[in-house]
Amino acid sequence: MGMNLTKIFKPQTMAIIGVSLSNPFNPANVIYNKNRHHCTAETYGVNPRGGELYGQKIYASISEIPVPVDLAVISVKADFVPQVIKECIKFGVGGAIIISGGFTESGKQDLEKEIRDTAVKNDFPVIGPNCLGVMSYPHVDTFFLSRERLIALNPGNVSLISQSGGILVDQLIKLTQEGVGIARAVSIGNKAVLDEVDILEYLNTDRDTDVIGIYVEGFKEDRGRKFIETADSMKKPVIIIKSGKTPGGTRAVSSHTASIAGDYTTFCQVVAKSRAIEATSENEFVSFCEVLSNYPGKRVTNTCIITASGGHGAMASDGLYDTGIMIPEIPEGDRTRLKALVSENIRDIASFSNPVDLTGSAGDIDFVESVKFFFSTDYIDCVLLLLLPYLPGISTDIGSRISELVRTFKKPLVVYIPHVDKYDIFIEGFEGNGIPVAHSVEGAVNMVKAIAGEKI
Amino acid sequence: MGMNLTKIFKPQTMAIIGVSLSNPFNPANVIYNKNRHHCTAETYGVNPRGGELYGQKIYASISEIPVPVDLAVISVKADFVPQVIKECIKFGVGGAIIISGGFTESGKQDLEKEIRDTAVKNDFPVIGPNCLGVMSYPHVDTFFLSRERLIALNPGNVSLISQSGGILVDQLIKLTQEGVGIARAVSIGNKAVLDEVDILEYLNTDRDTDVIGIYVEGFKEDRGRKFIETADSMKKPVIIIKSGKTPGGTRAVSSHTASIAGDYTTFCQVVAKSRAIEATSENEFVSFCEVLSNYPGKRVTNTCIITASGGHGAMASDGLYDTGIMIPEIPEGDRTRLKALVSENIRDIASFSNPVDLTGSAGDIDFVESVKFFFSTDYIDCVLLLLLPYLPGISTDIGSRISELVRTFKKPLVVYIPHVDKYDIFIEGFEGNGIPVAHSVEGAVNMVKAIAGEKI
Repeated sequence: MGMNLTKIFKPQTMAIIGVSLSNPFNPANVIYNKNRHHCTAETYGVNPRGGELYGQKIYASISEIPVPVDLAVISVKADFVPQVIKECIKFGVGGAIIISGGFTESGKQDLEKEIRDTAVKNDFPVIGPNCLGVMSYPHVDTFFLSRERLIALNPGNVSLISQSGGILVDQLIKLTQEGVGIARAVSIGNKAVLDEVDILEYLNTDRDTDVIGIYVEGFKEDRGRKFIETADSMKKPVIIIKSGKTPGGTRAVSSHTASIAGDYTTFCQVVAKSRAIEATSENEFVSFCEVLSNYPGKRVTNTCIITASGGHGAMASDGLYDTGIMIPEIPEGDRTRLKALVSENIRDIASFSNPVDLTGSAGDIDFVESVKFFFSTDYIDCVLLLLLPYLPGISTDIGSRISELVRTFKKPLVVYIPHVDKYDIFIEGFEGNGIPVAHSVEGAVNMVKAIAGEKI
Repeated sequence: MGMNLTKIFKPQTMAIIGVSLSNPFNPANVIYNKNRHHCTAETYGVNPRGGELYGQKIYASISEIPVPVDLAVISVKADFVPQVIKECIKFGVGGAIIISGGFTESGKQDLEKEIRDTAVKNDFPVIGPNCLGVMSYPHVDTFFLSRERLIALNPGNVSLISQSGGILVDQLIKLTQEGVGIARAVSIGNKAVLDEVDILEYLNTDRDTDVIGIYVEGFKEDRGRKFIETADSMKKPVIIIKSGKTPGGTRAVSSHTASIAGDYTTFCQVVAKSRAIEATSENEFVSFCEVLSNYPGKRVTNTCIITASGGHGAMASDGLYDTGIMIPEIPEGDRTRLKALVSENIRDIASFSNPVDLTGSAGDIDFVESVKFFFSTDYIDCVLLLLLPYLPGISTDIGSRISELVRTFKKPLVVYIPHVDKYDIFIEGFEGNGIPVAHSVEGAVNMVKAIAGEKI
């Protein structure tokens, strides 16, 4: 579309159209309160009857708001939406997010077409209808879910686009749990005006975004090809997860957003040829987003696996096989040199081939010396560390000690630590220092694949 | 082997051979303390110098212990182990677990063969060497890891066998986090005498075990075929996860436990023909163990997916496609009947085809009525419930209300809830009532596949 989306993502003023004076659980009221209390945009409520809400003036029309309005969040009955859009255009609003449902997904194609035609003719950017809209801290948050039920997001460099509000919120929760920070999150709903491609183009220019994750159900008309072209021209990695891959999934998608899921084989072929990365599971999606947000622009080929358990080393070796990522043999001389560096009690029982198995008797110093040793070589450009926090020799300092090495040598490190509350103290020692931690060996392997830039 | 393992898994008396009088961090001392404080077996310490430890008499030899000894846990230098085994046999000990390393994995094949020959000749059951041994609450726990670093296991009906101690502990942690209870856990190490097959045969007779999970690296000689024959003859489901599937993994395995990983293609073909279920990832392994522990012996074919998010429904439909599990269309009459049962505010926006999408406006009552409705039909024998705890209409009572339906109708239900601390209150409402909860849509799909008895 080439529309300017800045006023949608970074509004200085916004109007919430459709707040209720009687029902505090109305979605518009949830949005009104969230933005007034937690976002920077000055927020004005609109209801045709005017009045007062929580001690604030409610305006009878957008035209009465005393300042120019950057963004209108529209949550009124579907039939009234076209008229509201026209008013927004008339009074110079910068863009709109339509939260309301009741359009194509309910058989009202005409109503949606009317919105589209009006918006396109007037170069007026619109997200939705039938969506959660935009979360773009600290500016705006139109998700009509109470903050108490969600977890507080961290600011960061990952942005998400999703056709499904439910999937979007789930992924935000999962990324936040992994310590990943979010820049923007967009639920695009029925895509009457703006779609994935438009948002992708905007995010490509967004300074706060380094990595983009997208949940796709289907494309409209010929936008699939355009989407891939756009993903290809991006300066930032794009990770795609798709549903509607099978006849069953396609049927589910079409009853959901009334979009055509398209042929998955074709989709895969197109994605395979592009620079975009397909995640085939939610776990992969989260792993890819996490590691790329930590190491944007890094590329690796030769990995050293360091572990305290032979079983873990074997599982990781299996996972990396056939990916194009090498697990080079360690030269004899280097094995001898490393052996001299580790503690005496593991010297004769550890295995210094790759995977390096320091055994369950290893302590902090052995992991630190090994990571440092391989970071210093020219044949290893990434370390995969499989750490078991229940081993007696591992202290809670290990995260910061090893993170320091990553900063010094500027080579990426990926860590595996099983995830239970008790081990948060180890996990945070890494994640708090910008090192990605996976909670399964496969998750850790997926992270290495993603920074290797391998098509997966 | 046909040996009697009862005294290893349920000892009334045990001797810890090799406790140190000076080093409290010695593995034997960790085991001695754990068992004295937390297990039911009467525990005696042995050290050639005799003496006293923590106010308790330490015996100079197993022959001095004043009661018959069921189990000897041996943690002395490798060279001394054959002599200790001979003493155990001489003084009528019921079985031994050899914790010590320094055998085949360190090139000392002869030492290991000596143990094997002695044990086999005398029909003396031995686990190890080079292992963590056995955790069999409330009787015995020979894992030399401090309890403070592990999470407290729940008693339950899942038993695990593992060639790798590290993988075993990880899986115990992951299962416990999912609320799954453990009966026995066995780290078999070098398998000098008893191997997977022997333990499997024992667990088949163990009344406390309903489901068996096994981590395999490789089999000795012709035990692979025997293993599969045994798995096939079991009355209980057997879930296998294997490493050493690729040349890289195989190399890692052989440097780890000196066992031959075997050809993975052959392994897969053999497993595919057997009744055992292969898990191809840790996540699958945990999902399979969890769901089968909740619904032992249940088999399902026709699943209804109930969700509040179309995207989740589509992902689950994709996952179940091509598995042999049906997602039947809901007859028109039933759609109308269900529509009349749900709340008015979702009646016109919900979708009553399968997947049933109750939308983000659904409340507890809508989920309860829908689950009840489909449990009452004859064409649905399993419900997959995709629940989003951040939706305003869902209360913390939903778990117990829906669990009640599972008890009444005796049909299995699998739930998806994203996992963060905040949602534990929802998750526990199900898991505390014996309903398995997955934390990814794929995890939930895997659970349905496992109870469907489909080969995966």
